[in-house]
Amino acid sequence: MWRQLAPLGRDPSSGGYRRYAWSGADAECRAWFAAQAAARGLVCELDRNGNQWAWLGDPAAGEAVVTGSHLDSVPDGGAFDGPLGVVSAFAALDELRARGARFDKPFAVVNFGDEEGARFGLACVGSRLAAGQLTVERARELRDADGVSLPRAMERAGYDPDAIGPDPQRLSRIGAFVELHVEQGRALAETPHPVGVASAIWPHGRWRFDFHGEANHAGTTRIEDRRDPMLTYANTVLAARKKARVAGALATFGKVAVEPNGVNAIPSLVRGWLDSRAADEETLAAVVAEVEKAAAERGRRDGVEVRVTRESFTPTVEFAHALRDRVAGLLGAGPPGMGPPGAAGAPGAVPVLPTGAGHDAGILSASVPTAMLYVRNPTGVSHSPAEFAEEDDCVAGVAALADVLEGLACR
Amino acid sequence: MWRQLAPLGRDPSSGGYRRYAWSGADAECRAWFAAQAAARGLVCELDRNGNQWAWLGDPAAGEAVVTGSHLDSVPDGGAFDGPLGVVSAFAALDELRARGARFDKPFAVVNFGDEEGARFGLACVGSRLAAGQLTVERARELRDADGVSLPRAMERAGYDPDAIGPDPQRLSRIGAFVELHVEQGRALAETPHPVGVASAIWPHGRWRFDFHGEANHAGTTRIEDRRDPMLTYANTVLAARKKARVAGALATFGKVAVEPNGVNAIPSLVRGWLDSRAADEETLAAVVAEVEKAAAERGRRDGVEVRVTRESFTPTVEFAHALRDRVAGLLGAGPPGMGPPGAAGAPGAVPVLPTGAGHDAGILSASVPTAMLYVRNPTGVSHSPAEFAEEDDCVAGVAALADVLEGLACR
Repeated sequence: MWRQLAPLGRDPSSGGYRRYAWSGADAECRAWFAAQAAARGLVCELDRNGNQWAWLGDPAAGEAVVTGSHLDSVPDGGAFDGPLGVVSAFAALDELRARGARFDKPFAVVNFGDEEGARFGLACVGSRLAAGQLTVERARELRDADGVSLPRAMERAGYDPDAIGPDPQRLSRIGAFVELHVEQGRALAETPHPVGVASAIWPHGRWRFDFHGEANHAGTTRIEDRRDPMLTYANTVLAARKKARVAGALATFGKVAVEPNGVNAIPSLVRGWLDSRAADEETLAAVVAEVEKAAAERGRRDGVEVRVTRESFTPTVEFAHALRDRVAGLLGAGPPGMGPPGAAGAPGAVPVLPTGAGHDAGILSASVPTAMLYVRNPTGVSHSPAEFAEEDDCVAGVAALADVLEGLACR
Repeated sequence: MWRQLAPLGRDPSSGGYRRYAWSGADAECRAWFAAQAAARGLVCELDRNGNQWAWLGDPAAGEAVVTGSHLDSVPDGGAFDGPLGVVSAFAALDELRARGARFDKPFAVVNFGDEEGARFGLACVGSRLAAGQLTVERARELRDADGVSLPRAMERAGYDPDAIGPDPQRLSRIGAFVELHVEQGRALAETPHPVGVASAIWPHGRWRFDFHGEANHAGTTRIEDRRDPMLTYANTVLAARKKARVAGALATFGKVAVEPNGVNAIPSLVRGWLDSRAADEETLAAVVAEVEKAAAERGRRDGVEVRVTRESFTPTVEFAHALRDRVAGLLGAGPPGMGPPGAAGAPGAVPVLPTGAGHDAGILSASVPTAMLYVRNPTGVSHSPAEFAEEDDCVAGVAALADVLEGLACR
């Protein structure tokens, strides 16, 4: 199953994955999903927002138990972020059948579309649309780097963009959604446990900082005549790291765009994107406000105008306590932790831990009882070709997911 | 004449020029040049390196007086950098004819190819090849952002790439080359003079800084587990400005490339290009060494490996003193200055001043007696759509160029 999925959308030069929403690689991943479903006698269904569902039993019966994740990737992403949850879902079904378990609730494996937001800049588009957390109007305005709109990209991939929108009826039929995911940090790596349970997702957001200076010749413009936005940008990058460290939060500038981006030209515009996250919304707001203040102050010194636009924001997600505790109980987990990423629960028990990463499970948690399992990542590296999980830990993840699904859906 | 040239290669959204070597806009500019030459009864000739010459009299007679500049542009460049020198050359010929001047030496207007290096990353390719300052092997390896090689681009534009190479015979027939250029700073703006004479060009170069870190998830990777090259880059940008200011030199990071350049990904690689210039080669070497040292030190703190590659270097250019003094004498200029850009000569006399910008005249000065005239730029802005010179100052530039050419080529 892994072997068939592994080559799809892999870039030969970087070894990383480029599975962008509605691209050719995305279509290949979707065909793989349909084939896996068919091989297990599951009925494949595509919802109005392009999410793929593979059903065992009658979806309309209600109280369905659903598991899965996503197959798309960030630029040069790793093999596990997303696909591990889908592969483990099918593998857990195989395990339950091998155990002779009998389902007394409808069951489905799901592949959410466009989770990473690598192409259109907004994460979890498929689940956000379904849960009514992204308006149809705003979705229609999303454009990729080539100016192709989301509706146009869907159309080109053979989907009907007019159908997108909230899907409350579909979500109301779900009794529990469990997403298994590779851990994107090293909290489990410091414990003897291959699998952990999620307590919460940190609030997080993306802010675009536009630094407007004045284009000029790099070889002839005197230092005192310059309005160089690269300086303001550089100072803001360093300020963001410092403010975040002091607050115990995270702040990252990972994307930048420069105009005109010529070696001998002082830029007219530097655009940097801040990704920031913290344990609570108050801390996050304070960190971002301090970064904005530092940028504006340095901008005044450089003759550079700074404009900040919040491009997305996701509040704190507390996973449903009843389901979380039941899942933790099925795995023998300890009490939940709510420190920074890396803070596990009591030693000895299966760890219950928070994360800074957004997930479809976080989006759905507002509409559906939701839980998450993490599989240990020895280096903590993610969103990179070096992302890795040991085979034994992946097998333990499948067994844990099968235990949870059996407890929720069988007998 | 201006009116016909103005729309060619102009981008409607930015208002700036995108006249890249061997592009369609470049071909349009070359056709304009050929039409201007034909209208004046000049004989157009294309040399083996793609430079355009328009001759009056027999090129083989020797001791030719040549003037001109280039028509290509940086990304979103201004209307004056390059074209002012070519337009003024044709206008000065018109002026000399109106004066009834009689040429007793061969005369030519030249349009050098690929001066800005906007497409292939190396400036003054046409004059460097002719002067033997760029090897054929290295020229053949130049590639644009789409991976198109220089030979392939020349071929697509209808030129023979196998012909490129040193052209000493052609250069040996030139007795004097005078390039008129819009000033790219504000030295003349602080004087009552619309025109100045060049004393020297500062040594300058381009260095590529590769900051190698580790790609990782921006939302889950603990600060202490990060190897974020954006921090090292940012610190190096600020260090470069500081070192340059202390040394009275210039240092600019105007171009940057990030991998994978995703909002929620710590970069694996940040590549920044340093453009640096100083009044002498020793100061320049010291500034670049200090920037490299600062980058390496911060890199050790960030867990980031820094590699520096010198991509180009042009030594100090002292324009031929005899010709420079003769040109200055023809214009009644004062003694030469050799301070930083912005330092003019004695007040009252026509200013003689150095510049930080490279030019074809700087390349040719190693092979041919060469001089430069600058036309005042009220804001000093260059390499930008806002680049500007007053019409009166442009007219004064044409008159000054006509005076110089008359002194050199007529009777």
